[in-house]
This record gives sequence, structure tokens and C-alpha cells, in this order.
Amino acid sequence: MTKRGRFITLEGGEGVGKSTNMQYVVAWLEAQGIEVVATREPGGTPRAEAMRQLLLDPAPDEWLHTDAELLLMFAARAQHLAEKILPALARGAWVVCDRFTDATYAYQGGGRGIPAERIEALEAFVQKGLTPDLTLLLDMPPSAAKQRLESRLRDQHTTRDRFEQEQTAFFQAVRDAYRARAAQSPERFALINADQSLAAVQSDIRDTLAGRATLWH
Amino acid sequence: MTKRGRFITLEGGEGVGKSTNMQYVVAWLEAQGIEVVATREPGGTPRAEAMRQLLLDPAPDEWLHTDAELLLMFAARAQHLAEKILPALARGAWVVCDRFTDATYAYQGGGRGIPAERIEALEAFVQKGLTPDLTLLLDMPPSAAKQRLESRLRDQHTTRDRFEQEQTAFFQAVRDAYRARAAQSPERFALINADQSLAAVQSDIRDTLAGRATLWH
Repeated sequence: MTKRGRFITLEGGEGVGKSTNMQYVVAWLEAQGIEVVATREPGGTPRAEAMRQLLLDPAPDEWLHTDAELLLMFAARAQHLAEKILPALARGAWVVCDRFTDATYAYQGGGRGIPAERIEALEAFVQKGLTPDLTLLLDMPPSAAKQRLESRLRDQHTTRDRFEQEQTAFFQAVRDAYRARAAQSPERFALINADQSLAAVQSDIRDTLAGRATLWH
Repeated sequence: MTKRGRFITLEGGEGVGKSTNMQYVVAWLEAQGIEVVATREPGGTPRAEAMRQLLLDPAPDEWLHTDAELLLMFAARAQHLAEKILPALARGAWVVCDRFTDATYAYQGGGRGIPAERIEALEAFVQKGLTPDLTLLLDMPPSAAKQRLESRLRDQHTTRDRFEQEQTAFFQAVRDAYRARAAQSPERFALINADQSLAAVQSDIRDTLAGRATLWH
């Protein structure tokens, strides 16, 4: 029987360096001879990516209601799980996902103020008990993350999506919610200080991966 | 205090004449001096219509998972309720909606086989107790409805959406589920025989509207 793969998620607010470190995690695992499926949320399949577009679209003329946002997020997640994550884990591949349900608790819960029990209800509905084996939380103060985000937007000449347009209080609430999640499940989370040099961040990630003996058996 | 408006839904499978009779209901109510907001599901607002496109898109390369379909349907419904239906009812307008949650029980429940309790969980989550005041169920055998649908598609040179592509067993299950819903809530439902001349169907609709004294007080 094929051994089920491991499910690793990367979490953190805007500007904490998730994309760069995501590549690092994938490369490090592949160097251990592991088949890795790298993916992201919301999105990860063509239909789920189409839902992502609806979630990120700033369309200024119509506010996206918080319940609609939450349900759309879990619709994309149901699609992503059924079409990509669960089949990959079943065949023994490891899945590394840029954001997952902790982001829903942080953004829709902490940021938008949706009560946790409403999120828990949809989490149980869609995931039926599935949780990541390891979650790397890239953590830094929102003020420092904001500087990074602004410099990236300037360099890439891109406009802000619906979440990137939010204000400091929103990002502080997102960070607080992420840290509260990590404190609740210390065995699953690794809190990585992202407010240091990239080399230092990646050294911490490497130590975490190498040290999580439970992942390897 | 403004009196809350009434919420009327039209339901039925493909090809039963919903669009034509929708116009008739709206015109009849307006002739009584009522302000009517005519709308449809899935859709009804720009963001919810964008979700409708994802629901109807046949995209043959990626199956839309049943849970994702159900969540997307309720995401569109949450948006529609918050942005259009609830504000209209609150200001005293009547809302006439081409399909609503009974369609979810019929299509996703009866047609796709999703257990009713999974739909009930999302209905309670999104609607918080709101149900239509009157539901007109246009009922006819799927074989007769199929002939009408095929003739319409031929005349309009349109292609079938993801639901119209389903087979007879699917539409039979949809009809059975609709009729079971109507039997469960006879005070809310009016079962209209749609397998007769348009004049006869509209006469039945008119009698129903005129006879539902509870709607007018």
C-alpha cells in the first residue's frame, strides 16, 4: 500500500515573503528525493483559480458580502481538495500549499470579524477532519510587512487586490489571529520569524523541516 | 414602519416555461400596483452572476466537485440576499425570483445525490430562517420538458450549459425532489401543471396569486 504523503502549508500576511520561501521549501524537500506538488489557495485548479479571481477582484461597485466571501473560499477549497490535494496525498506525493484554512481564520475571521464557529462549521463540512501535518507561519510585524509589500507593488507596477487594499488595523488583526491559531496547535505550527535576513529565515525553515521527525515516518 | 414585501419564487426543471411565466407573474403583480423586483438564481447581482458563470460553465476538462458546486451556489445566494433580496423586501418591494433554495434541493440534492442535511446546514448558515412566502412549482414530466428544451436550443442556436447536458434520469430525480419538497410544505408551495397550454398555465398562476389571501395582508 502506498504511504500517504505529507501536507505542509505556508501561512502569513501580505509581504512576509511567502512566495520566495515556498520555493525554498519545495526545493529542499525535492532534494530529499520527495515528490512534491506545490500549489496555492485560493486556487490550485483551473476552476478554483476562477473562484480566486472572484475573491480577489476589487470591483469597487459591489462589496463582496463576508458570508459570500467565506463560502466562495470554501467552494474553491472543496474543488482543490477533491481534484488535486487528496489525489496527490493518496499516491504518496507531498503537498506544499501556499495558504490554507488557517488563512481563512486569519483573514475572514480575524480580519473580517466572522465568528470562528461559522468558519469551523464550513471547515468540518469541507475537510471532514483533514488538517495539515505541518504549518510554517511566517510572522512579522505588519508595519515591516507593509514596507515590503509596497516596494514589491512599486517594482512590479501591479495594482492591489481586494485584500492588499486593506488598512493596518486589518493586517494587525490577521497577524493576531494567525498567532492565536499557532498558540492553539503548537504541535502542528512552526512559528518562523520572517523579520530577519532571507538566509536566516531559510535556515530556520530548514531546521524545522529537518527536525520534524514525525513527518518522515 | 414600512411593511416588509413578499418573497415569491418560481421553480421547475429545464423546459417547463419558467422564463415566460416569470414575466407573467411580474406583470400581474405590477398591475395590482405592487413594486416588484424580478431577479434570478444563481445570480441576481454582478458578483453573483459571475459565480453563476462558474456554475454553468461546461468546461469539459475539469469536473466541478459536488461540494464545490453546492458551496458556490450558496456563496452566490449569500451575495444575492445581502445585496438585493433583503434590501428590496425591507423597503416594501416584492421580490420574484426565478429559482431559489428549492432548486438546490432538487438539483444538487435530488440530481447530484447530496444528502439533504448537508444542504440544510448551508441553508441555515446563509438564510438564517428566511424562506419564500409563496413558491410556484411549474411541474411537467421530464420527457415533455425535454422536447421543449430541445426545440428552444434549436431555435436559439445556443449550446447546453452544464445542467442542460444532464440525462433523463437526472431530470426525473430533479422533478421527484421538487414534488417531494412541495408535499412537505403545501402551505408555501403551489403546484402548477405546466403540461398544458400557456393560457391554461397562466390562468392557474393568476388564480393562485389572487387566492393567496395571506400574501396581501
